[in-house]
Amino acid sequence: MTEINKLNSQDEFVGFYLLKELELKQTNNTPPKDYFDIVLCDASGQISAKYWDVSPTDKETFFPMGLVKIQGIVQTYRERLQVKIIRIRKTLPEDGVTLTDFIRSAPIRPVDLIHTINQAVKDINDPEIRTLVEYCVDKVGEKLMHYPAAKTHHHAYYAGLAYHIVRMLEIGDFLCKQRPFLNADLIRAGIILHDIAKPEEMIAQLGIVSEYSVQGKLLGHLAMASNWITEAAIHSGIDMQSSRVLALQHIVLSHHNLGEWGSPVQPQIAEAVALHYIDSLDAKLQMVEDALDTMPVSEEWTPFIRGLENKAIYKIKL
Amino acid sequence: MTEINKLNSQDEFVGFYLLKELELKQTNNTPPKDYFDIVLCDASGQISAKYWDVSPTDKETFFPMGLVKIQGIVQTYRERLQVKIIRIRKTLPEDGVTLTDFIRSAPIRPVDLIHTINQAVKDINDPEIRTLVEYCVDKVGEKLMHYPAAKTHHHAYYAGLAYHIVRMLEIGDFLCKQRPFLNADLIRAGIILHDIAKPEEMIAQLGIVSEYSVQGKLLGHLAMASNWITEAAIHSGIDMQSSRVLALQHIVLSHHNLGEWGSPVQPQIAEAVALHYIDSLDAKLQMVEDALDTMPVSEEWTPFIRGLENKAIYKIKL
Amino acid sequence: MTEINKLNSQDEFVGFYLLKELELKQTNNTPPKDYFDIVLCDASGQISAKYWDVSPTDKETFFPMGLVKIQGIVQTYRERLQVKIIRIRKTLPEDGVTLTDFIRSAPIRPVDLIHTINQAVKDINDPEIRTLVEYCVDKVGEKLMHYPAAKTHHHAYYAGLAYHIVRMLEIGDFLCKQRPFLNADLIRAGIILHDIAKPEEMIAQLGIVSEYSVQGKLLGHLAMASNWITEAAIHSGIDMQSSRVLALQHIVLSHHNLGEWGSPVQPQIAEAVALHYIDSLDAKLQMVEDALDTMPVSEEWTPFIRGLENKAIYKIKL
Amino acid sequence: MTEINKLNSQDEFVGFYLLKELELKQTNNTPPKDYFDIVLCDASGQISAKYWDVSPTDKETFFPMGLVKIQGIVQTYRERLQVKIIRIRKTLPEDGVTLTDFIRSAPIRPVDLIHTINQAVKDINDPEIRTLVEYCVDKVGEKLMHYPAAKTHHHAYYAGLAYHIVRMLEIGDFLCKQRPFLNADLIRAGIILHDIAKPEEMIAQLGIVSEYSVQGKLLGHLAMASNWITEAAIHSGIDMQSSRVLALQHIVLSHHNLGEWGSPVQPQIAEAVALHYIDSLDAKLQMVEDALDTMPVSEEWTPFIRGLENKAIYKIKL
Amino acid sequence: MTEINKLNSQDEFVGFYLLKELELKQTNNTPPKDYFDIVLCDASGQISAKYWDVSPTDKETFFPMGLVKIQGIVQTYRERLQVKIIRIRKTLPEDGVTLTDFIRSAPIRPVDLIHTINQAVKDINDPEIRTLVEYCVDKVGEKLMHYPAAKTHHHAYYAGLAYHIVRMLEIGDFLCKQRPFLNADLIRAGIILHDIAKPEEMIAQLGIVSEYSVQGKLLGHLAMASNWITEAAIHSGIDMQSSRVLALQHIVLSHHNLGEWGSPVQPQIAEAVALHYIDSLDAKLQMVEDALDTMPVSEEWTPFIRGLENKAIYKIKL
Amino acid sequence: MTEINKLNSQDEFVGFYLLKELELKQTNNTPPKDYFDIVLCDASGQISAKYWDVSPTDKETFFPMGLVKIQGIVQTYRERLQVKIIRIRKTLPEDGVTLTDFIRSAPIRPVDLIHTINQAVKDINDPEIRTLVEYCVDKVGEKLMHYPAAKTHHHAYYAGLAYHIVRMLEIGDFLCKQRPFLNADLIRAGIILHDIAKPEEMIAQLGIVSEYSVQGKLLGHLAMASNWITEAAIHSGIDMQSSRVLALQHIVLSHHNLGEWGSPVQPQIAEAVALHYIDSLDAKLQMVEDALDTMPVSEEWTPFIRGLENKAIYKIKL
Repeated sequence: MTEINKLNSQDEFVGFYLLKELELKQTNNTPPKDYFDIVLCDASGQISAKYWDVSPTDKETFFPMGLVKIQGIVQTYRERLQVKIIRIRKTLPEDGVTLTDFIRSAPIRPVDLIHTINQAVKDINDPEIRTLVEYCVDKVGEKLMHYPAAKTHHHAYYAGLAYHIVRMLEIGDFLCKQRPFLNADLIRAGIILHDIAKPEEMIAQLGIVSEYSVQGKLLGHLAMASNWITEAAIHSGIDMQSSRVLALQHIVLSHHNLGEWGSPVQPQIAEAVALHYIDSLDAKLQMVEDALDTMPVSEEWTPFIRGLENKAIYKIKL
Repeated sequence: MTEINKLNSQDEFVGFYLLKELELKQTNNTPPKDYFDIVLCDASGQISAKYWDVSPTDKETFFPMGLVKIQGIVQTYRERLQVKIIRIRKTLPEDGVTLTDFIRSAPIRPVDLIHTINQAVKDINDPEIRTLVEYCVDKVGEKLMHYPAAKTHHHAYYAGLAYHIVRMLEIGDFLCKQRPFLNADLIRAGIILHDIAKPEEMIAQLGIVSEYSVQGKLLGHLAMASNWITEAAIHSGIDMQSSRVLALQHIVLSHHNLGEWGSPVQPQIAEAVALHYIDSLDAKLQMVEDALDTMPVSEEWTPFIRGLENKAIYKIKL
Repeated sequence: MTEINKLNSQDEFVGFYLLKELELKQTNNTPPKDYFDIVLCDASGQISAKYWDVSPTDKETFFPMGLVKIQGIVQTYRERLQVKIIRIRKTLPEDGVTLTDFIRSAPIRPVDLIHTINQAVKDINDPEIRTLVEYCVDKVGEKLMHYPAAKTHHHAYYAGLAYHIVRMLEIGDFLCKQRPFLNADLIRAGIILHDIAKPEEMIAQLGIVSEYSVQGKLLGHLAMASNWITEAAIHSGIDMQSSRVLALQHIVLSHHNLGEWGSPVQPQIAEAVALHYIDSLDAKLQMVEDALDTMPVSEEWTPFIRGLENKAIYKIKL
Repeated sequence: MTEINKLNSQDEFVGFYLLKELELKQTNNTPPKDYFDIVLCDASGQISAKYWDVSPTDKETFFPMGLVKIQGIVQTYRERLQVKIIRIRKTLPEDGVTLTDFIRSAPIRPVDLIHTINQAVKDINDPEIRTLVEYCVDKVGEKLMHYPAAKTHHHAYYAGLAYHIVRMLEIGDFLCKQRPFLNADLIRAGIILHDIAKPEEMIAQLGIVSEYSVQGKLLGHLAMASNWITEAAIHSGIDMQSSRVLALQHIVLSHHNLGEWGSPVQPQIAEAVALHYIDSLDAKLQMVEDALDTMPVSEEWTPFIRGLENKAIYKIKL
Repeated sequence: MTEINKLNSQDEFVGFYLLKELELKQTNNTPPKDYFDIVLCDASGQISAKYWDVSPTDKETFFPMGLVKIQGIVQTYRERLQVKIIRIRKTLPEDGVTLTDFIRSAPIRPVDLIHTINQAVKDINDPEIRTLVEYCVDKVGEKLMHYPAAKTHHHAYYAGLAYHIVRMLEIGDFLCKQRPFLNADLIRAGIILHDIAKPEEMIAQLGIVSEYSVQGKLLGHLAMASNWITEAAIHSGIDMQSSRVLALQHIVLSHHNLGEWGSPVQPQIAEAVALHYIDSLDAKLQMVEDALDTMPVSEEWTPFIRGLENKAIYKIKL
Repeated sequence: MTEINKLNSQDEFVGFYLLKELELKQTNNTPPKDYFDIVLCDASGQISAKYWDVSPTDKETFFPMGLVKIQGIVQTYRERLQVKIIRIRKTLPEDGVTLTDFIRSAPIRPVDLIHTINQAVKDINDPEIRTLVEYCVDKVGEKLMHYPAAKTHHHAYYAGLAYHIVRMLEIGDFLCKQRPFLNADLIRAGIILHDIAKPEEMIAQLGIVSEYSVQGKLLGHLAMASNWITEAAIHSGIDMQSSRVLALQHIVLSHHNLGEWGSPVQPQIAEAVALHYIDSLDAKLQMVEDALDTMPVSEEWTPFIRGLENKAIYKIKL
């Protein structure tokens, strides 16, 4: 079965794919005819597709996030590849395919990511800080297992948020060893909390964000996380004036660094500065790695990456 | 007794003033001599002053925020007026002067301002919103009676914050009548809460801000007020997911309108838009009025006003 | 008859509408066929429509800004509603429909708006200022009766400009009472004159701006109004060096506040500052109100509003 | 007699200079003593000076813009040269020195500059354009003979404005020959009119701007010149809707190119684009030439030049 | 034969044109049909075209940059003209048409442009500077004969780069005469070298840039030219620390003036300032001239020009 | 002996210090008297000082970068500490003090830093890359042993540049292990080369930059390093078109990320992105660490740090 990022123009193929998006449209013919405008995906990437002969039954059968078997042919439309679907059916149990095999996912198993995060929480020595972090991790609950870290910006896939946290924890540990003036408890706590409200800021399924929640739009994940820390302190009987509460709220609120990037205050303690730059380093490098991973093998340049000054990355060969 | 904004070059005068700032310095003479570098103020304005013959006793006698009787002469230094102090002594009970007569203050009595604010709280029909507002007003306590609204930007005087709120409530009432689509409860609540954490963000005495608090620098009054609303909800048994909690937190967080002005989110409900523009209108007009009020009568242009594109205002005569 | 903002997908309907835009296009079929690409509107909103079976007679019959009777069916195309027109004919006298019932219009009758503006002119006490304002109001003539205040930004409908002026006059009156240091004559005059050249800057019909005039593009309504005041002074025998001429020209030229928003000078008299913030307050609140008024009832968010940091407004339910 | 830009540290000298600025100040001694804080200038540059032994008669004798004979010694203060004045007296008729020999001036005689400008007016073929230009040139009157082009930015010396115009006329003539699509009448007229209101925008004496006029601050020379063209048209019986009036007002209003540089509209006819870039080229090159001319011979770098991205210019030796 | 910029809607015509772009696409019909989406051009402009009846032979026959004879009809699609091709064939020798007649080209013959540039090189008096310039001109070789100066920004046609250099040399000569403080050798050398690496930065054919080279994207023509000067110095035995090498590298690196426009350093010698403003003047005026030349005769406004603040230019008639 | 950062107001002390800056000035007395305006430093920090009784011999004796023994008293001037020097003499051999003990220096010995860098060069596997790096390291020579990394921004002390490189190499090694898609040779080479031209861009002594070199101002260290790589390739017989030359020049030129920060191109290969963010992370964290290290023990906030959004850092106590 051909993976999507291996398809070339004129290829005829049969395979299983996920209907990531599906819309019923009509041609300009007289009389107009119904057709499906589709986005297919698998773990390797995604491609747009058209199905021109939609029957009334088809309209009741096919919906987004369903697995299908497809016979198709690859064509070029406006310099981009597009599939013309010849035959399509829903998958059957005997096909032996699993939904989660068709979505992009972090390269480490979610259960292992969560294990690492939980271990990092336990490694926080200061009991007050640990308590506050535990409360917030509990509050977000199992969503941490599968949420992406963003809609499209970076780590936009299944368990992307947990993967982002784990990679940052590795960098944080390294830096705390290299620079002992940093408080390792605050670094760990800051890394775990900085995006902890994202699963409530965005609405996602299978690692794909469909939209932002009302609360997400009106408050944003920075202020939401700050509110959660207030809630955690009250529920845990920790003084709201505690320097630990203050430090964690400051780290969370300042982690976008600048007002125009959404932070109402700028980093003003050492660990807040560190957190912002660890976050940038991990996010930017992951954007590069993901863009290189999912580009067609034949290309030399990735698409433009908004988070990298809207530049494309060149796959240099030495 | 001559008010400070009436002093002219070469005037000799005697009067009571407040030592707003006082610093002990030394001349470049050999041997160097001690002198005081002073800022005098009264309700009409302020002026810098020098006292060249400081005795050891003087050093133990004079401190900022003390009332003094002064005999002096007005000189010009770098195109600005400056007082050369000839004699100085602390005020005595029999002088019959009161500290609060020497500071700039809102033109309405603090007790009346607080009364108006309390009445506005009572006028909020929605019980949940009223409860949340009451909690925050109680939390800030008697500081609301005398705090300024800012360090220098606008309403920077005794009871300036309460005065700002009261004037905005008047504008808010007018607009709610003019445009009934606005929710009057949210407008009133937003006006009262938008700067409610300023007395904890800044450290002030007699309406003069000396500096920002640590919490003020690390969180800012927007996020602080959002945290207070969380606290108010928990303590009042109001669901944190309530649309009223969400609306109030949104109004508070968005009231600076833009990220570069400190808001992590932009106004996205009608009342948040209204609040920002009511706040601007009141603050900017007050800057103009205060600058015109405190400028020397002989001048045609006020000093440059940072909040008005750093422009001076011309006192036009028609 | 169904209003446009009440139409839902799959609705079949018959009704009278205005052809706001109409373009003859051709399908990609072989041979290609003619069709109409149409925008229909009524006072409640607008919707795009297609008419696939265009006859040669139709091409001579239907033109923009004509009233038509339509039988159609609502479909979804690219997530937006679109009408497929089944039958179309021009309206007849016996249909008893009037063009002006189908366009968006200020909520107050134009004749009443003009009356209010004229009254405000009369209320200007200073005869020189009153004369200058009268000259400019006369110069713009009856266009003030029906012109919108902008192409799309705010008050973009029939009599929108007069409505904007009237609302601002109400706010201006309130503020002059609240803050007596403002000169009420200058505030009234500034409100009436600030956009007075817009009807010459833009070309509009029925409250809909089709484009900017050559003079509008090359000079802009700020410099045009300044030139008009020069003309008014010369024709009325008023000294061009008069402080009243200067003040009015300054208010008009500075009312966009910043260079990047089109003002060659920044507000530097109290009334110019006031005018800019009254203008902002009215324009921004009207954008919100209009967006909420014209959005489909089923939606929770308005479209993005360029004048409000390109944010959508949420219809919060308390 | 030593020119100011030839003075070196420790030089003792006697010579005639102009008192460009003079302020009476007092030392910190007890009792304080009066001294003069002075800026001396001649045609080669300027230098600050102190006169420590001011007598009561001196206070009545010396004022800015007076010529004096000075005996002094050059010292270094904060890495800059400064004169300690030993003796000072006003010049006498028998000294045979003339005020105008001591001020910086354009390198061409004012009378010749004016002649060239008048000739260029005559060379305008279109009678309507010529009439409008003549009116404005007449209106500014003899001030064109000696006004500088700016306070400090460029051509800030006696007859600097006329010199700027003449040099631009030379460039304009060259470009109209190189690119015949440009209308030479509009180019000439635009060059003469673009800064024509500057002598009313600024208050200057002997080529030195002391401040901006009230009208200059409230309207700016762009809108003022636009108003003048309106006035010129009315007084000359030219239709205000004439394309010539429109073109000249557009060129004047757009010549700063961007809103943030003070233009309410951007250049939108060929000659307006040309004018802006001719103006830039002449102003920037003159800044460089003047900075190189007036720097001390021993230096390699000029001071920072605000109009050149605040960079210093290096005197490269090949 | 009709030139492209003379075509009007509904015209039927026969003529020779260049296939500037050609893409094979498919209609939405069932079954879909192949068609060509084409851009035709001649020296007067370009127009999009469709050819709906593509045969298998056609697919092997027609490719971009081929000359064709076309019978077509002009239609309107989305307010823009578009050709429906009725018949198409490749040109034959007996048609007597030449490829270069169909592309836009500088108004002076390339061979004459090159001659002028070579003469300017010879006119450089300083042997070291002349040697460095010669090396770089030799390095770019015959590409200087035909390369455009940019992809779309300015001088985007055959020999556009050489034409840009020649016009700048004329302006440079004029200015060096007007202002003798400028070093004429550096001005000439700077003009010739400033864009000398563009032919390696971009990939062009017949004056049309298809894309940027990898080296062009990763280094840019400023740093590339600086590297070439290093290479020139080493190969010519010139000391890399020479002030001439430094001056030329500085001029080249600073000629975009600002960091955000791509210059790592700002102009800091007189000739670098001059070069930047000569470059601007020539480029901006050429944008205007080219836009006016290629617009349809019936239009009053050119398209928006990105390099001129994205404004359109109005063809004013006096 | 008291370290400078331990001095308190009113302390009287005797000790050895370095004269970092010394300027001869004159008092305003009549007659004026000579005095020294001095900056003293040791490894712990710096402080300003005055010496009021300068003798003619003193003027010949004391110069910057000389070691002195001082008896002084600490005073407060404008809220900052300042030393009044009572006695001063040059150090003698028998004092047993060494210049290098009095300057701030990297916390690792220069010889060890150089060893680490040399080892990293050897660890580059690709021979072409290694050769290019070796050439540039050789070219900068022994200056790498002691140069600071910047004038004031970060690592502004003895061997600061080498220390910056070594720390970045540690981070680079960690990241290459964490993310194997990065090319470790390019990361190492990029880290060593990115600031390699700084010792030629700046003029420094004992880790203190006095000014930028002419070449540094006119070219900048990015373009200089790019030129050096060109030179390295030519001298080593490596093809200038080699992808390795291109990659290294790209990494060096793009490492400031944005045009406004001095990069003519933006990072467009994975290793260039990585290098920029490693550089930021190390520089920003070092700014924080150095600011915390050198602040007076009694303070809670560091001075404002320009490289950190001009914010001060708070020394939080948990």
